[in-house]
Amino acid sequence: MGGNSFGEIFRITTFGESHGAGVGVVVDGCPAGLKLCEADVQAELDRRRPGQSRLTTPRSEADSVSILSGVFEGKTTGTPIAMIVHNKDQDSSAYESIKDLARPNHADYTFFMKYGLRDWRGGGRSSGRETVSRVAAGAVAKKLLSQSGVSVIGHTVAVAGIKTGEVSHAGIIGNAEDNPVRCADPDVAAKMEEAILAAKREGDSVGGVVEVIALNVPVGLGEPVFDKLDADLAKAIMSIGAVKGVEIGAGFAVTDRLGSENNDEFIIRDGKVETTSNNSGGILGGISNGMPIVLRAAVKPTSSIAKEQRTIDLSTVEEATIKVGGRHDPCIVPRVLPVCEAMVALVLADHLLRNRASKVW
Amino acid sequence: MGGNSFGEIFRITTFGESHGAGVGVVVDGCPAGLKLCEADVQAELDRRRPGQSRLTTPRSEADSVSILSGVFEGKTTGTPIAMIVHNKDQDSSAYESIKDLARPNHADYTFFMKYGLRDWRGGGRSSGRETVSRVAAGAVAKKLLSQSGVSVIGHTVAVAGIKTGEVSHAGIIGNAEDNPVRCADPDVAAKMEEAILAAKREGDSVGGVVEVIALNVPVGLGEPVFDKLDADLAKAIMSIGAVKGVEIGAGFAVTDRLGSENNDEFIIRDGKVETTSNNSGGILGGISNGMPIVLRAAVKPTSSIAKEQRTIDLSTVEEATIKVGGRHDPCIVPRVLPVCEAMVALVLADHLLRNRASKVW
Amino acid sequence: MGGNSFGEIFRITTFGESHGAGVGVVVDGCPAGLKLCEADVQAELDRRRPGQSRLTTPRSEADSVSILSGVFEGKTTGTPIAMIVHNKDQDSSAYESIKDLARPNHADYTFFMKYGLRDWRGGGRSSGRETVSRVAAGAVAKKLLSQSGVSVIGHTVAVAGIKTGEVSHAGIIGNAEDNPVRCADPDVAAKMEEAILAAKREGDSVGGVVEVIALNVPVGLGEPVFDKLDADLAKAIMSIGAVKGVEIGAGFAVTDRLGSENNDEFIIRDGKVETTSNNSGGILGGISNGMPIVLRAAVKPTSSIAKEQRTIDLSTVEEATIKVGGRHDPCIVPRVLPVCEAMVALVLADHLLRNRASKVW
Amino acid sequence: MGGNSFGEIFRITTFGESHGAGVGVVVDGCPAGLKLCEADVQAELDRRRPGQSRLTTPRSEADSVSILSGVFEGKTTGTPIAMIVHNKDQDSSAYESIKDLARPNHADYTFFMKYGLRDWRGGGRSSGRETVSRVAAGAVAKKLLSQSGVSVIGHTVAVAGIKTGEVSHAGIIGNAEDNPVRCADPDVAAKMEEAILAAKREGDSVGGVVEVIALNVPVGLGEPVFDKLDADLAKAIMSIGAVKGVEIGAGFAVTDRLGSENNDEFIIRDGKVETTSNNSGGILGGISNGMPIVLRAAVKPTSSIAKEQRTIDLSTVEEATIKVGGRHDPCIVPRVLPVCEAMVALVLADHLLRNRASKVW
Repeated sequence: MGGNSFGEIFRITTFGESHGAGVGVVVDGCPAGLKLCEADVQAELDRRRPGQSRLTTPRSEADSVSILSGVFEGKTTGTPIAMIVHNKDQDSSAYESIKDLARPNHADYTFFMKYGLRDWRGGGRSSGRETVSRVAAGAVAKKLLSQSGVSVIGHTVAVAGIKTGEVSHAGIIGNAEDNPVRCADPDVAAKMEEAILAAKREGDSVGGVVEVIALNVPVGLGEPVFDKLDADLAKAIMSIGAVKGVEIGAGFAVTDRLGSENNDEFIIRDGKVETTSNNSGGILGGISNGMPIVLRAAVKPTSSIAKEQRTIDLSTVEEATIKVGGRHDPCIVPRVLPVCEAMVALVLADHLLRNRASKVW
Repeated sequence: MGGNSFGEIFRITTFGESHGAGVGVVVDGCPAGLKLCEADVQAELDRRRPGQSRLTTPRSEADSVSILSGVFEGKTTGTPIAMIVHNKDQDSSAYESIKDLARPNHADYTFFMKYGLRDWRGGGRSSGRETVSRVAAGAVAKKLLSQSGVSVIGHTVAVAGIKTGEVSHAGIIGNAEDNPVRCADPDVAAKMEEAILAAKREGDSVGGVVEVIALNVPVGLGEPVFDKLDADLAKAIMSIGAVKGVEIGAGFAVTDRLGSENNDEFIIRDGKVETTSNNSGGILGGISNGMPIVLRAAVKPTSSIAKEQRTIDLSTVEEATIKVGGRHDPCIVPRVLPVCEAMVALVLADHLLRNRASKVW
Repeated sequence: MGGNSFGEIFRITTFGESHGAGVGVVVDGCPAGLKLCEADVQAELDRRRPGQSRLTTPRSEADSVSILSGVFEGKTTGTPIAMIVHNKDQDSSAYESIKDLARPNHADYTFFMKYGLRDWRGGGRSSGRETVSRVAAGAVAKKLLSQSGVSVIGHTVAVAGIKTGEVSHAGIIGNAEDNPVRCADPDVAAKMEEAILAAKREGDSVGGVVEVIALNVPVGLGEPVFDKLDADLAKAIMSIGAVKGVEIGAGFAVTDRLGSENNDEFIIRDGKVETTSNNSGGILGGISNGMPIVLRAAVKPTSSIAKEQRTIDLSTVEEATIKVGGRHDPCIVPRVLPVCEAMVALVLADHLLRNRASKVW
Repeated sequence: MGGNSFGEIFRITTFGESHGAGVGVVVDGCPAGLKLCEADVQAELDRRRPGQSRLTTPRSEADSVSILSGVFEGKTTGTPIAMIVHNKDQDSSAYESIKDLARPNHADYTFFMKYGLRDWRGGGRSSGRETVSRVAAGAVAKKLLSQSGVSVIGHTVAVAGIKTGEVSHAGIIGNAEDNPVRCADPDVAAKMEEAILAAKREGDSVGGVVEVIALNVPVGLGEPVFDKLDADLAKAIMSIGAVKGVEIGAGFAVTDRLGSENNDEFIIRDGKVETTSNNSGGILGGISNGMPIVLRAAVKPTSSIAKEQRTIDLSTVEEATIKVGGRHDPCIVPRVLPVCEAMVALVLADHLLRNRASKVW
């Protein structure tokens, strides 16, 4: 109810602030007997952490995770898995001078109004640093999914209006992690990188689009009517701070099409039921149909920019101006990608377990 | 967990099939003392019901609602409000001949695989008829919101690629209900209607986009981190069968912009904090900021079409072909709009109550 | 959150008032493929309904149930099972004259204070008639449990201070339903009946104790730490209006014992792990251990009595006196028993499904 | 769903094992603006910690708590409050030799069967050490309740069959913390202490009964039908490992009474509605009525005893014998009391917040 938990059976609860003691997560409902170690989690955190490349914030955090409970002799025990990442480089001095100013497009104003006070150090709980917890939990979900052969992959498909063409799954797996924008097409990646650095030089920022794909998802995941798989995915993705839109399969493109163009026809290929196209994005009536699950998220340009903007002073409720200093990513897209993957993995792991109750035995 | 409930405090549970005894809903958590009568609910159901115009299915259902509990002497009592709409014109004969064929883009295949059996009459639970329950519950939510001055309005902004320009709130309120497509611009509405009828003549269908706006929403609704207001809205909208995408505020358009273009600057107007633009769609950090909440949903072309399509036979697991008979809307967009409004109202009513716990007294 | 739902996976939501249109329940999360018909449910409702014997209220209700959804061709479909029992003999005239008087030990005062208004007809939602919904849902749970070989039985072990001795499971199954008090010992039953009728003649009422036993429960049901099987059972039973205490296994008797007397030692009998005694009542650490689950509930004497009592007038907030007319059971114990069984069945069915997620596959 | 969370709005999630890194809790849904510091929490933990007196286990744990998040400049911020107590004196050597033996009345057998493996060091998650998290969270709940004038007190009313007589609230507040058994009557306390030490000398253990009372609870807390205040209290208390029974108000004693004896009559005293007696224990129809809330819990004799008992070997599934070494309390009653108080405080804090949604404004 406080909004810091996600999932029904595979359920996570996160905590922590940008410049407090640390950020962490409790994973409840992970089945017993899953092999799990800190390295599994660290690998995903390293993809999200700051300071990976010149495209990201220079805040230097190793983001080293500790598993506090729920794992015994290398396996999950069925009890809660608590994980914590202590904050190390939490320099809040840049925030001191603007602590009464509501940064545009940030949550400063709304947190202050909702709660009557706020932790102004780096945005406190509203910081993107909160997503450390999601990625850590997502790593456990990915491990669980891999037991069932399910994998979750992702890539950047647009930055600052620069878009990739069609890319194969193999292309994504092979290339996306090879460049700092996580674009599967190296040529397009170079152009995206250029656009990001250009914005950075201007003290400005750019947005983009990421695509996440889940492969080998069994048929049957998703619970009609409200907990449809696509509904839960939409919530999962939209709950990430920077995301302003989400679409499944062909998404907004379907709105211009005829039904006869958009319908995916069923066929049998190698003894398996498939569809000729995948405009549905692997989900029919809210339930996975065995085709790859495909979704895209619209990521806004980073709200923290060095340019002067109009704002208000929360203490005096008067107009003011602000230039947001601190250490920021000129484009958050490449670091949002592992967060999106984590959220998709969390939804799928949860529905994998929920689906165990669908039929009598 | 079964997926047929929605909301945390203001929580609904729906039931019923397309061709069973009826469809209904139990609203739990509605505060006591709210004036409510069947006419309040009927007014919204009439906007959703079939047979309103030549654009909709000829299935003839009065969709007359009965309130079974939770209201005493014209007011809610704080106990569950159960409502039922009995099915009247449930002719399932058109489905008999295709009961083993999986209709493309429908849930026939996935329901059958998930549950091992399915109610094939009109799609059973996976039918759009399920949304009657949402609209009935949404009417109660709208009544509760109106107590706080909040109103939820909507209009069709695209059909078959034909789009409206900018429309004022007054224009939406004044014009959208005056034509069968629910488009606030009468000239565009005429073109949309033409496109729908053209598709119908071909035994085909078209999709579109609806926009829903909530006015006078107080600052502070939404619970970080996962139950952000936009996250819950995204789930609410994406849980509607025909929706394939959802965006908040400027949505996917933000991905091409610079941060300096996209940020909404704070100002004080008539003593009230506002933003100069509303790219955020009234939500910052998952919490309402007092500006209008704006979202759009991508609605796919109706899946049931008269044209022949390839499919499989569920009983033999062999390839087959199908022409979907029965009575269908060539464009579901105008009837999805009241459903979207209902879902938005449900989310806002729930968060209005949730927000009562945000501060100590 | 409104408090009218129970269970996590196998989850019920109830509605309805004593003298409204009817009472009902929506069962969400029942697996697909379970054989179910109205007769299954009716059989349990008949055990609870008024007018069974001279020990119960003369209110005459057939309590005939209709299944509105979720069952197709004799089997559950995995979609919500809605059931309704329409009220027939709802004569509220006896309540008209006392509508402003708070009946002692009833919920009149607290409902009025909590909600600011109340449905005074027969207590509205706070009436014992609400338990119709529990018994109907419990019948579905019992059907599901029987698939796994689990059965739930019960008997009256005390009325007005008159107690049964030890009774075998066979004795309970064979005899408890043969007399109106549901006591497995016919001689004791006769004395109990006498005590009830004696109280009735005085315009007074008596209480008692029921015991419920679940047989063949598999090892492993229950979720530490908070959703222990005994914790959920305690809530389930204490949520019944007339219950003031609940105990598991040896219950309050353990408090006088030494650990060496109270511990149940493990042995192997016929290749199966058992315990020599069952003071734990079939639950260790909140998880079923394969022994019979045993619990007892303390049922208070019926609050509605014909004798004059002091009370207050809710409209004037002044002291007053009241004699509660209407049609009441002088002892509610025999009719509470099927309700307790239903609640135990609901908890077990839910945990049977929850336990499917305990291990990786 | 994993069972490690409790509460709806004021919701806690606990983690940690007896001999792992530590035990902790995340409190989500605590309103912003509550003054809170580590000393508030430490004071309650000190009442629960081992090594307080010669009646408790010699395990030496300072149980020093750290608040990791959710508090800024001495006040709660509305974000999750994470707290951790690191384990210091976790000597698991005593468990090594019995790691395959199921300790009678412990959860060893059921955990092993449910999860397929178990952390055998001190019982892992099933250890009473888990209650550290409850007490820490309960301290926050008590702080929140004190804002509304509500206080929660408790005392030991029976140990090994030795019982206190009637004690006033002042007597409980004044005397219960002055002796190691937490009995409000010093003479009875001395006898209880003697009985505990006698059992200890024999390598045995004893049980008892604790009573918890909540004062100044406002009228209106509790949500019919299933989330009645007494139902949630029963679950809260029964979820504590050592508890086998719970009763509200007069509890099991009501079963011998006439309705006319048991009903609490309403009167007006000093302009306030009260009842002449409090057999209902402050709750009517599941809703608090303004009278003190009174409940009692039956606590079993400590399961770990030095005497030889029959058991099974989990690795071979053969019969065996066991003497449980390690460091144990001969009577857990005095240390269960603060845990019971914590659970009552958690339920009340949650319902205080839930009740904010009961009426329209």
